[in-house]
Amino acid sequence: MTDTTPQNGSVLIAPPGLKGLVVADTSIGSVRGEEGFYHYRQHDAVEVARHQTFEAAAHLLLDGSLPEAAAESAFRSELASARRIDRALFDAIAPAGHPPPPMAGLRAALSLAIDDTPTIDLDPGQRRSRTVAAIGHVPTLMAGLHRLATGSTPLDPDPGLGHAADFVRMVTGAAPSPRLARAVEIYLLLTMDHGFNASTFTARVVTSTGAGVSSALAAAVGALTGPLHGGAPSRVLDMLDDIGEPSGTEAWTRRRLEAGDKIMGFGHAVYRADDPRSALLKEVAMGLGGDLVERAADIEQRMLAVLRAWKPDAVIVTNVEYYAAVVLHLAGIPQELFTPTFATSRVVGWAAHVLEQAGDNKIMRPKARYVGPEPRRG
Amino acid sequence: MTDTTPQNGSVLIAPPGLKGLVVADTSIGSVRGEEGFYHYRQHDAVEVARHQTFEAAAHLLLDGSLPEAAAESAFRSELASARRIDRALFDAIAPAGHPPPPMAGLRAALSLAIDDTPTIDLDPGQRRSRTVAAIGHVPTLMAGLHRLATGSTPLDPDPGLGHAADFVRMVTGAAPSPRLARAVEIYLLLTMDHGFNASTFTARVVTSTGAGVSSALAAAVGALTGPLHGGAPSRVLDMLDDIGEPSGTEAWTRRRLEAGDKIMGFGHAVYRADDPRSALLKEVAMGLGGDLVERAADIEQRMLAVLRAWKPDAVIVTNVEYYAAVVLHLAGIPQELFTPTFATSRVVGWAAHVLEQAGDNKIMRPKARYVGPEPRRG
Repeated sequence: MTDTTPQNGSVLIAPPGLKGLVVADTSIGSVRGEEGFYHYRQHDAVEVARHQTFEAAAHLLLDGSLPEAAAESAFRSELASARRIDRALFDAIAPAGHPPPPMAGLRAALSLAIDDTPTIDLDPGQRRSRTVAAIGHVPTLMAGLHRLATGSTPLDPDPGLGHAADFVRMVTGAAPSPRLARAVEIYLLLTMDHGFNASTFTARVVTSTGAGVSSALAAAVGALTGPLHGGAPSRVLDMLDDIGEPSGTEAWTRRRLEAGDKIMGFGHAVYRADDPRSALLKEVAMGLGGDLVERAADIEQRMLAVLRAWKPDAVIVTNVEYYAAVVLHLAGIPQELFTPTFATSRVVGWAAHVLEQAGDNKIMRPKARYVGPEPRRG
Repeated sequence: MTDTTPQNGSVLIAPPGLKGLVVADTSIGSVRGEEGFYHYRQHDAVEVARHQTFEAAAHLLLDGSLPEAAAESAFRSELASARRIDRALFDAIAPAGHPPPPMAGLRAALSLAIDDTPTIDLDPGQRRSRTVAAIGHVPTLMAGLHRLATGSTPLDPDPGLGHAADFVRMVTGAAPSPRLARAVEIYLLLTMDHGFNASTFTARVVTSTGAGVSSALAAAVGALTGPLHGGAPSRVLDMLDDIGEPSGTEAWTRRRLEAGDKIMGFGHAVYRADDPRSALLKEVAMGLGGDLVERAADIEQRMLAVLRAWKPDAVIVTNVEYYAAVVLHLAGIPQELFTPTFATSRVVGWAAHVLEQAGDNKIMRPKARYVGPEPRRG
């Protein structure tokens, strides 16, 4: 961590990619990569995922505490109302039923539907209500755009269902079994917040200008589409398809490694111990069972052995994307909705960070170092 | 510049707001606040504004050099083509002729109209063509949304006009006089790029994830709406209206200072000498002449005297927003289009930074320091 070095006695240089550099204080949570541990507020995030609902965890991240039963119920109603969107919004972003790519559609829809009054002109309650509106809109929009893209019509939300189950229903057209709904809910719970990843950082930079909730969240959606942002579980599914029978894993993996390709589903920028999200998602997948799960577990073990032999000194662990792909597939979420599903949970973390940034703000305005030819004056 | 201090021997802490911290290398330009000087590539930006067209300067920022006549003509055609937008886009973002607020509409339109293929999957030419499409779209969208909001219909661009003149024409409905067109063009030229301001930084953070041009530019639009991002010339106009006769300046200013209000149009985060943009814009305004200009110049001098007496140790200079407000008003640009007009020029700088970031990329993933209650494990 000695990359940030003063230069010429007066210029501070950040490490490449700002790696390891603390750019803000937060009470929302953190990732302790060395320990394989992360938390939401003062709660172990894996325990929250294991025992709480989407709604309770969102309340925890936004408001700072797990809700009592009455508060959870109130928040559940608030979020269910926020899932309702004006059908005209679909007509706007998907004219004549031709929807844009889902994440572009989400950016457009958040831009049009969520009030963008500058956060510095709002009180905390007004800011919060806009973030809850956005959190509610995401699953309805993502599911509706998918249905339009596949030739059917968007479904209205069902306020009687939890957020996770209702998302699956609005995608597939039928309420999922409690077991599948809970599997998806655990995935959503595990991925709500995770340190200062690039999309969360983006949301905070935009908020730091005093801009509105809509501006900040739409910007974060853009960052989330970046292939370098945590990778994409959908590529794990392609990989499992491509490998086919587990017995072919070793040869497939070595071929890819020799070609210099990145293997999806393993390794993480932060975790040096097990990725705690992966362990719980594997447990969830094993509970669902079936051929894909067995094949994925077999391939995982073979692949870890090859990867560890290839790089004996590296810490190589299965990451959250590996079993996320399996769980979402089993729940009937199509591959092209994997990133939108991630947005459905991560928007909660973004929202918490927007509120925190707006509550104690200073504009983020770093510098660049000019390295081009010396300019001529005058 | 000693705020970035190692803590516990291993954690690097950025200064608040990342102030003074170099987070990237760039060949696009820089601001030398102490010298009252900024440049685009190797050219003095004020000289570029004085002698070049919008098109030539955009070529300079995007491609690295001022174009020869043939190249400028080719780029002028390319940009004119990019100003053309599908009328269906207006129907989408302004259903039934009801347009959203201009900057929200711009974000939505860029999301829907500009291809968002991840930059890491594109070659440099493909990335560049998407940025030129976006630069071309901005004035047509901004002017068209304004016309819809005021009960008229969007105008098609005129490829025979320069970018600046065509923007004014699409706003007001009539081609401006060469003198007014040039005044607006100089404003646009002066504000294309200006160091690592928050919107430029946002565009680079989003690009660092490998995300597409549309994602990066729409995110930057969001950041630009922040009231802390350089302030808004429209508030300068409100101030001039509010003061009325110059003789009331001193009392008005002292009243505001005593109330703790910020005075718009003076001071800048970076410049410690004169703001070089302000000097040229004042010259442009004086050239246009008229009552508003004379009043603004008188009020400026009176206000500077009060401000300097109020804070004798501070460097207080007129900033770019002061005469920008006057020039844009005289050119017939309504106040609610001041920030959209700024977007029309600044999108060029964002585009250059997106291309530079994509060309030599590393994902920006800083850290936050958890300062909440110690979490319980398990």
